[in-house]
Amino acid sequence: MSAARVVAFGGGHGLSASLRALRHCVPELDLDITAVVTVGDDGGSSGRLRAERGGLPPGDLRQALVALAGDHPATRRTAGLFQHRFAAAADPADGGATADALIGHAVGNLVLHGLMEVLGDPVAALDHAGAMLGAVGRVLPMSRQPVDIEARVRGGDPHRPDEVRTVRGQHQVAVTTGRVEALRLTPVAPAACAEAVAAVREADWLIFGPGSWYTSVLPHLLVPGLADAIVSSRARRLVTLNLVAEKETLGLSLADHLDTLRRYLPELKVDMVLADSKAVGDPVAVEGAAESLGARLVLAPIAVRDGTPRHDPAALGAALVPVLGADR
Amino acid sequence: MSAARVVAFGGGHGLSASLRALRHCVPELDLDITAVVTVGDDGGSSGRLRAERGGLPPGDLRQALVALAGDHPATRRTAGLFQHRFAAAADPADGGATADALIGHAVGNLVLHGLMEVLGDPVAALDHAGAMLGAVGRVLPMSRQPVDIEARVRGGDPHRPDEVRTVRGQHQVAVTTGRVEALRLTPVAPAACAEAVAAVREADWLIFGPGSWYTSVLPHLLVPGLADAIVSSRARRLVTLNLVAEKETLGLSLADHLDTLRRYLPELKVDMVLADSKAVGDPVAVEGAAESLGARLVLAPIAVRDGTPRHDPAALGAALVPVLGADR
Repeated sequence: MSAARVVAFGGGHGLSASLRALRHCVPELDLDITAVVTVGDDGGSSGRLRAERGGLPPGDLRQALVALAGDHPATRRTAGLFQHRFAAAADPADGGATADALIGHAVGNLVLHGLMEVLGDPVAALDHAGAMLGAVGRVLPMSRQPVDIEARVRGGDPHRPDEVRTVRGQHQVAVTTGRVEALRLTPVAPAACAEAVAAVREADWLIFGPGSWYTSVLPHLLVPGLADAIVSSRARRLVTLNLVAEKETLGLSLADHLDTLRRYLPELKVDMVLADSKAVGDPVAVEGAAESLGARLVLAPIAVRDGTPRHDPAALGAALVPVLGADR
Repeated sequence: MSAARVVAFGGGHGLSASLRALRHCVPELDLDITAVVTVGDDGGSSGRLRAERGGLPPGDLRQALVALAGDHPATRRTAGLFQHRFAAAADPADGGATADALIGHAVGNLVLHGLMEVLGDPVAALDHAGAMLGAVGRVLPMSRQPVDIEARVRGGDPHRPDEVRTVRGQHQVAVTTGRVEALRLTPVAPAACAEAVAAVREADWLIFGPGSWYTSVLPHLLVPGLADAIVSSRARRLVTLNLVAEKETLGLSLADHLDTLRRYLPELKVDMVLADSKAVGDPVAVEGAAESLGARLVLAPIAVRDGTPRHDPAALGAALVPVLGADR
C-alpha cells in the first residue's frame, strides 16, 4: 500500500504538536506529511524581519520544519541551531555599549529569510531548509504573500463591554481579551500557494488544529484557493480540538470552536473530531457541534499528564493511529 | 598509500584561494585538508559580532568552510546561503523607517556565531558547519580566543614620514599605508587551538600564504603553541607568495615577504617557495631569500589570466600537484 498523504494545517505550537504526533504514527503507519502554515505573524523576531525587510514571516514555518527534523544527531543539532534565539551577550567585548540588534532573533528565522532572498522563492527556501534538517515531510506556506489578520472584537476594553473595535495584526488579535466577532485577512483574498493546493487535492487526510483558533487554524479557510481545495478534496478531514480556550477565544466553548469552522467555510464537511476526554467534560454539546459538521467525535487522553494545557505528541499520535489507519 | 595530510594557514581570500587550489589537486592526489585560520578580524560583519556579542570573528572561518564546501547541488546552495550578505531591503513593509541591523551580515557569520553559542565550542561549531556544507576538509581556528593585531607603523601619516605609531586592530593594520616595522598580538601569547596543533604535528605538508601577510599569514607564527608545532613537525613546508604588495605590505618586495617569516619565527625552515613567474620578475632576490629559509624557489603561472592580482585556483592547483605529489 502506498503512503497515506496527510496535510496538517496550522501556525505555531499547535501545528508543531500535530506534526510531532504524526511522526509518532510513522512506525505503525506509512505517512507522507505536508504542513501548510499561516503567514500572518507580525510579532517578535518574525514581525521585525517582516517589517524591516519584507517577505514571509519565518517563525511559524521554522517551528513546523523543526517539528519534522530528522532524528540523526547532526540534523538534531541543526534543529537546535534553528531554534536558538540570540540573547543579550553575556560578555560583549566592548562592555555592551553597542545596541545588539540580533537579540530576540531565532537563527532559523535568519536562515529562512536568507534562503528566501538567495533562492528568490519561499517554497524553494523551505524545501532547502527541509533538506538541511533532514525533514521527514514538507513545509509549505498557505500563501507566498504575507497576510495581515484583522478582527472585529467586542469588549476588548473591559470598561466598554459592548463596544466593537477593529483589532489589526495577528499578535494583537492573539492577545485580545474581547470576543472576536468577525475575522478577515488583508489582502482579503490572498493567492493560495499552488504547491499547498496540490497537496490538499492529492491528500488522503486533512488535519485542522490544534492551535490558536483565530490566528492559526481559521486563516487557512479564508484563502479562497485553499478553501476550494479543502472542500473539493477527496480526503477525509479531521479536527483536533484545543484543550483550553486561549486569550483570543476566551468565552468560546469547544463546541463554539467547531461552529466557527462552519461559519467561515459553510461548505466544510468533517469526518472526525478528536478531543481530549477530560477537556471535553460532558460531551453532548461537542458531539452535537461535530454532527453539524458531519463528524463523529472521538475522545482520547491527548493532553500531557502534568496538567498543563499542552497536547502530548506521543498520546496524540497514539490516538491518531487508529483514525488515520482505518480503511475508507 | 594513505592520504597526504595538508595543513593550510591563512585568513581570508588568500586562504580561500589556497584551499580551492588544494581541491583542484584532489583528482590526482589523495589529500586530507585542514585549514588553520586567524582569529584577529575586527572589521565588517565579523567585527560587529565580535564587539557586540563576543566570541571568535566568524568571517574568515566562513570563507574557509565555503572554499571546502562539497560539490553536491544542495551543499552548493548552503554555501551560497552562508556567503549571502543581507543588503538593505528593496521594499520593506514599513517603508524602510526602521533601522535594519542585519544589513552587512553574512548569513554564514550568523550561523557560525549561533552554532558557537549553541554548542559552546568553536571547534564543535566549525565541525558541524563543515557537515552542513559537506566540506571536503576541516576548518580550525588558530586559537579558541579572539586576538587583536597590533603593529608599529612608520609613516602612516604621509606628512610625517618618519613618525612611528602603534596601529591597533586587524582592519586598521590591513589598510595602513605606512610601513609595518613590528607586529604583535594581544594577548601576546594566545593559547593555540589543540586540534590545530595536533593537525600540524601529524601533517605531511604545511602551506603558508598567499594572503595579507601581516594580518593573515604571520599571526600564526606569533601563537607560541602553533609556532612550536610548526617548527618541530616532520612535515615539509611550502610558502606560496603573493602576486602584488597590498596596502599593509606596500614597499615590501617578495623577497622581503620571505624575510619577515624568518624575522617572526627564526627557527622556521621552508622546503619550497612557490611564486608566479611574472610577479617575481628577476628571480635572483627571491631565490636568495628562499635559500635563506632553506627553500627551493618554484616558478609557475599561478595568477588569473585577466591581469587582476588574484591566484587562479586551477592554475595554483596544477602547480601544487607535482610539489605535493613528490616523494620525500
